[in-house]
Amino acid sequence: MTAGELTDGTDGTGGTDRTGGTGGTEDVCRPPADVPGSPPPPRSTAQRVRDTRELLRREIDCWVATTDPATGAPHLVPLSFDWDGRTMLLSTAERSVAGRGLASGGGVRIGLGATRDVVMVDGSVEVVPAAALEPSEGDRFARRTGFDPRRSSGSYLFFRVVPSRIQAWREENELRGRDVMLAGRWVVSEE
Amino acid sequence: MTAGELTDGTDGTGGTDRTGGTGGTEDVCRPPADVPGSPPPPRSTAQRVRDTRELLRREIDCWVATTDPATGAPHLVPLSFDWDGRTMLLSTAERSVAGRGLASGGGVRIGLGATRDVVMVDGSVEVVPAAALEPSEGDRFARRTGFDPRRSSGSYLFFRVVPSRIQAWREENELRGRDVMLAGRWVVSEE
Repeated sequence: MTAGELTDGTDGTGGTDRTGGTGGTEDVCRPPADVPGSPPPPRSTAQRVRDTRELLRREIDCWVATTDPATGAPHLVPLSFDWDGRTMLLSTAERSVAGRGLASGGGVRIGLGATRDVVMVDGSVEVVPAAALEPSEGDRFARRTGFDPRRSSGSYLFFRVVPSRIQAWREENELRGRDVMLAGRWVVSEE
Repeated sequence: MTAGELTDGTDGTGGTDRTGGTGGTEDVCRPPADVPGSPPPPRSTAQRVRDTRELLRREIDCWVATTDPATGAPHLVPLSFDWDGRTMLLSTAERSVAGRGLASGGGVRIGLGATRDVVMVDGSVEVVPAAALEPSEGDRFARRTGFDPRRSSGSYLFFRVVPSRIQAWREENELRGRDVMLAGRWVVSEE
């Protein structure tokens, strides 16, 4: 199982299940069935904050969930992003479903990493027209993602996601203390 | 970049960008930066249908995007699933955000695989109380996922996702022909 069932359960009523659970794994390429049945001990909060920041620095793609403002239907698409240490910069076509959802003010939820080593970001979204983006930021985005929306033939926008809550967990034994950022603040400061 | 920007772009206006793009990779564990700059040739539709079915057979976890019926906000969580060859069986806590979203009739969008080897499933959701699930189905779900919601201490429901549209793409050269299922039918039948 993924801790998702459990964590998600806690989202609603706190009704979690402590039974079951497969071995923890950080390797999304290796099916959980291949790993031992008992997960490693839960990471400390400070370690989770470090791991989360490292993942944000290292990863190039993320899963971006939005609500289609036209229908209210859930939307999901993988997008590349840049992390400046404080915000996630995304870009997609202005009139795409994700683009309209990101611009709608309805918020965004972003998943990073593997399903057994998850970083989940809830945040607010600021629309940034390409012309309003600092050239150095646009260059950095293009270098990191291999994609320069400023040179795109379509009509692309940038979207700056300001994280308000970030959760990080691997297996069910990491459900407790999965919040690494609350109200826009890391729960453990590295500074 | 992920083809997501492009594909997502086409969701809206068809305004896609043919520049950029990193090397194709099926290995989510290997950062795109490490792979050659030119993606492999696009797969045939028949191959994509085969690959998609294999991914549904092989994968245990998926990214489940729903809309929070209480707020309209996007929700995303990794959940384990079972694939019976026709539908995806999920389970989560009845009163969790995902559980309430899945039960709301607002639909679901599910992402499978890697961000550079995506299978995206749009479908309708049927709520299946644990007592109404065929015991053999529940056993199969428990075997595959390592989690048996029927024995859970919390109040869990099963959710049967009936795919209506499935898309499969790797890099931007696979945007054309990314639909492998439309209106609930594989575009290329293997039978």
